[in-house]
Amino acid sequence: MARAPDVHICEVAPRDGLQNLDIFVPTEAKCALIDTIAAAGVREIDAGSFVPPKVVPQFADVDAVMAHALTHKSATIGALVPNPKGAERAIAAGVNAVYFVISASETHNRANVRRSVDEQVEGFRAVRAAIDARPVGQRPQLMGAISTSFGCSLEGEVSEAAVCRVARAFAEARADEIGLADTVGYATPKSIRQIVAAVQREVGSQMTLRLHLHDTLGAGLANAVAGLEAGIRRFDAAVSGLGGCPFAPGARGNIVTEDLVFMLERMGLSTGIDLDRLMQTREILARHIPAKHLTGHLHEAGVPKVLRSAA
Amino acid sequence: MARAPDVHICEVAPRDGLQNLDIFVPTEAKCALIDTIAAAGVREIDAGSFVPPKVVPQFADVDAVMAHALTHKSATIGALVPNPKGAERAIAAGVNAVYFVISASETHNRANVRRSVDEQVEGFRAVRAAIDARPVGQRPQLMGAISTSFGCSLEGEVSEAAVCRVARAFAEARADEIGLADTVGYATPKSIRQIVAAVQREVGSQMTLRLHLHDTLGAGLANAVAGLEAGIRRFDAAVSGLGGCPFAPGARGNIVTEDLVFMLERMGLSTGIDLDRLMQTREILARHIPAKHLTGHLHEAGVPKVLRSAA
Repeated sequence: MARAPDVHICEVAPRDGLQNLDIFVPTEAKCALIDTIAAAGVREIDAGSFVPPKVVPQFADVDAVMAHALTHKSATIGALVPNPKGAERAIAAGVNAVYFVISASETHNRANVRRSVDEQVEGFRAVRAAIDARPVGQRPQLMGAISTSFGCSLEGEVSEAAVCRVARAFAEARADEIGLADTVGYATPKSIRQIVAAVQREVGSQMTLRLHLHDTLGAGLANAVAGLEAGIRRFDAAVSGLGGCPFAPGARGNIVTEDLVFMLERMGLSTGIDLDRLMQTREILARHIPAKHLTGHLHEAGVPKVLRSAA
Repeated sequence: MARAPDVHICEVAPRDGLQNLDIFVPTEAKCALIDTIAAAGVREIDAGSFVPPKVVPQFADVDAVMAHALTHKSATIGALVPNPKGAERAIAAGVNAVYFVISASETHNRANVRRSVDEQVEGFRAVRAAIDARPVGQRPQLMGAISTSFGCSLEGEVSEAAVCRVARAFAEARADEIGLADTVGYATPKSIRQIVAAVQREVGSQMTLRLHLHDTLGAGLANAVAGLEAGIRRFDAAVSGLGGCPFAPGARGNIVTEDLVFMLERMGLSTGIDLDRLMQTREILARHIPAKHLTGHLHEAGVPKVLRSAA
């Protein structure tokens, strides 16, 4: 296995990228998307969500997609879960990582998972216990993701204290990692620095942090760079900038993986990702998803030939 | 007059934003655009270019547009010039600022102004002398702009030495300010920091620097933040992300003024600009310019109501 890249990117298009579409993407296309992402060298893929199909019909085929995704041994295959029941399904499916979401915004948490933040923390503890009860070799990683860490389209600004409260709960319940999610894309480089520093103080520097960024207002890559400068080395991103949250009105797509990879590599930071192969995901997506949902500066401008050697 | 804003933004849509369009924007629309920009509180407007109409037909009406722009006394009204003849016309028109361009890339300089870099430096000296020969109260500011400071779509990477050479020439010929232009949008936050620091070393900290950024590859606002962190407080930007260079293939639009203003204000940095009024420029542009040329995250997502108080 090659040495670890400087920056670890988790591709979330198969989950976050599809959850807000009103078009059902066929199972074969989801699998082809995951195959191309894996072939490009991406080392972590958020491959789907274990939610009831009546809540998010897009993931009615999550068991089949996950079984296929898990044939790729070069990547950590993860799944988002909203509650212990979802986690149980994800664990049974054999995922490598479970992403459990709690929102810093009480209003968004109720809209998203229909529970209070305190009830959701209880749910996380139950998942931790269920995973710990399994044999050592069969325990997926358990990641805590804090939605609306940088603002909420329902509540507006979200306080540092609200984010730190959830971070502390995750840390106390032994999350393997904590993700700070800008669910609706309201972060600025300043708030990234502020919240990351506050959470680092709250949970200590031993805890690995991740940033999950949406590019609603144009500052997506600026926020990623602010995160880098604050010491973050793990980022979520979605090919073609897909993404959104069904329960967070106004949320736009994730930061664009292709653009992020190109910028990082040009800054001398390795990602381990083959950009040309990653950009082939566009063809798969374009067959099923209307063009208005597919963004990305590199796709629009083309990868500059004079700079090819940098990629 | 209100106190100076933390960040000074020069609106370049009337010049950079229009120069690459194959549609002639009527004189009245150009004037209405400038009126709305001025009414929004923008303190510097790049209002047009004094180039021969057969080279850039868009500016055939530059004298009329400039005369109208100069009725706004709340803003510095500037004009781009490619040579001493253009500067002569700009000075005769009574502009407050002359932007004189020299490219760090020899190839782009020849494509853009049909002279070598050395010949262009001679031209700048002639303009400096012509301005200095005028009575004190009638001397416009003379800004030196270094095109392709962060890469060239004709030459590829541009060396720090090539940028510093032009910066030194501008400084020695007493430019009132030096602008570093990412003409084709190839900069990264890393190259911004590197080139800004190199130029600061070359010309000294007394020289005011400006950044002119295009968002070809998605890192536009990230580059602006890198500039801020390097001490830059003057930025060019274009409403609706208009822009491009007729002689730099592959260049995309400037960073979007609306998105820049919103991000800066949310970071606690004042711009002196009324975002609501600035966004009214969209209506004027949309009447004459096809939608594909009009970008901007705020225009697409809408200004989040829950964050209105921040703007």
